[in-house]
Amino acid sequence: MRKKLISVLQSILLCILYSWGGYVCAEQDASKFYLPNDITQAQAEQVMAAAVKKAVDNKLLMNIAIVDAGGNLKAFVRMDGAFLASIDIAIKKAKTARSLNMSTYELSKLAQPGNELYGIEATNGGMAIFGGGELIKNKDGLIVGAIGVSGGSVAEDMTVAQAGAAVMVK
Amino acid sequence: MRKKLISVLQSILLCILYSWGGYVCAEQDASKFYLPNDITQAQAEQVMAAAVKKAVDNKLLMNIAIVDAGGNLKAFVRMDGAFLASIDIAIKKAKTARSLNMSTYELSKLAQPGNELYGIEATNGGMAIFGGGELIKNKDGLIVGAIGVSGGSVAEDMTVAQAGAAVMVK
Amino acid sequence: MRKKLISVLQSILLCILYSWGGYVCAEQDASKFYLPNDITQAQAEQVMAAAVKKAVDNKLLMNIAIVDAGGNLKAFVRMDGAFLASIDIAIKKAKTARSLNMSTYELSKLAQPGNELYGIEATNGGMAIFGGGELIKNKDGLIVGAIGVSGGSVAEDMTVAQAGAAVMVK
Amino acid sequence: MRKKLISVLQSILLCILYSWGGYVCAEQDASKFYLPNDITQAQAEQVMAAAVKKAVDNKLLMNIAIVDAGGNLKAFVRMDGAFLASIDIAIKKAKTARSLNMSTYELSKLAQPGNELYGIEATNGGMAIFGGGELIKNKDGLIVGAIGVSGGSVAEDMTVAQAGAAVMVK
Repeated sequence: MRKKLISVLQSILLCILYSWGGYVCAEQDASKFYLPNDITQAQAEQVMAAAVKKAVDNKLLMNIAIVDAGGNLKAFVRMDGAFLASIDIAIKKAKTARSLNMSTYELSKLAQPGNELYGIEATNGGMAIFGGGELIKNKDGLIVGAIGVSGGSVAEDMTVAQAGAAVMVK
Repeated sequence: MRKKLISVLQSILLCILYSWGGYVCAEQDASKFYLPNDITQAQAEQVMAAAVKKAVDNKLLMNIAIVDAGGNLKAFVRMDGAFLASIDIAIKKAKTARSLNMSTYELSKLAQPGNELYGIEATNGGMAIFGGGELIKNKDGLIVGAIGVSGGSVAEDMTVAQAGAAVMVK
Repeated sequence: MRKKLISVLQSILLCILYSWGGYVCAEQDASKFYLPNDITQAQAEQVMAAAVKKAVDNKLLMNIAIVDAGGNLKAFVRMDGAFLASIDIAIKKAKTARSLNMSTYELSKLAQPGNELYGIEATNGGMAIFGGGELIKNKDGLIVGAIGVSGGSVAEDMTVAQAGAAVMVK
Repeated sequence: MRKKLISVLQSILLCILYSWGGYVCAEQDASKFYLPNDITQAQAEQVMAAAVKKAVDNKLLMNIAIVDAGGNLKAFVRMDGAFLASIDIAIKKAKTARSLNMSTYELSKLAQPGNELYGIEATNGGMAIFGGGELIKNKDGLIVGAIGVSGGSVAEDMTVAQAGAAVMVK
């Protein structure tokens, strides 16, 4: 209780001290800052926990990224020993899935030499065109984000990503 | 009528011809692909029309960009003779405003040497830290996007951007 | 009439108020700022309207970008629910078409493994090497810009892009 | 128990099915893949939890990023309604702090016009030169990573970042 009071007083003090810098300290109403149905932090944590659990169960070292409906990063975890390259790959898988409204596995087929979308990986500052990115939908089927997993084989990445996304439709 | 029939038949034919490429031709349900309250194409067109009108009235040559709640480009127009540099500036102003939930004019004050956010323009692949980016809110005060205008003085850019954004709360 | 007068007065006032900022308020002669035959805002709007109409008729969710003869963005529209990835793809298709003076469909054949331009997508900050980018020519056959469409299959994208470009030679 | 068995069998099956793809399924020894004292996933979660708690206590909407000793992203969380721009800023603050072995607040002073490191923000693909990035040290004073926080005033960002980093030396 006392700790909380100190924390609040500290905030007020900071506001006074730093208000000369032009920063407005009035409490922000978070609900005005994001669309009502977008994936929440709490939901992202559930998705992340389910994905990490699947990775641990399968003894996999994974990078896991979650983006919201706007394709913007919401949560990320790199397990100990997981590939450094997979930081960017996991994030790109999630963004790619959301920005094409399909899993990156579906995309991988379209992006092969000779097929429809061959070369698409050179757009958008680099896209991930192999499996491991899956859409996150809510119970109504609305796309609210995407999850990207990288660190194992494509099949392993997909298994972990799907385990994460599945939480939202349970 | 007959033209429409031909158009539909053409679509079906295309689906048959190209389905070997792996592309799914089933009609897409747009409503599952974006969050309910996000700015719509129709709204973006109204905002754009109001901004262009203000620019024409004030004899200004403007680049005008509109982004949605996720900060992703929704609409863009470059008037004849408007600065080429302002293509990127207008887009960055809109993205910057949305991604900090404040006008770029407010930001410009915080980003001056010695102030809180000095140097912020070096993040996010380049941010616009001078006026001309304004939030687009709906009647409930929810942020649904932003508009960025570039081509005149900061005051002129702001006037045009505000004229665009004002349409949504009328 | 009165409204216009107020608008003009407002402009003059802004000039006086903000001229200390170093900005020159003298009226700009737009005609000195772009090449005589370049695609105009009015023409771009006609091209855009025709492309959007074709997309609506075919029940497609599209991103549509138009660039001028200099390859610089002139107009852009994202229909509701259209792919986020296609913002960049549509713009890149238009730029790619203009910067190689061929449709991206023609380019797609040259860019396949083993062919002449294999790997070209890695240049220019990323090029689009699949169909959906079409040149915009005027009645004299002069290239005045390009249109890029993304959101459907390649065939669908091409159909919409061609419907847009066709307006200029009617 | 039975669930775990199924999970293991599933992994083995995946290895058999997909090994033709060239991916080696032998169990990986995570401990060979990162330095002994580097920040672990478990530690990063503790740091993150403490930072999020401080943000919630102070009613702040924050983006929080943690990098390891190599400056590579380890964990990230964006709270609901937190600035979109702060995704990149939080990550850059953490990377900047680690890559210069000082807090970004210390750096902010050196990076002002006229001072030693003026202009440094233009290097490394963009650096963050305002407070909110803090080093994470272990009990021996060894730098094992850094935390970057963005969403409030600089003072607020610093308070939250320091609350996170403090966990490691308790």
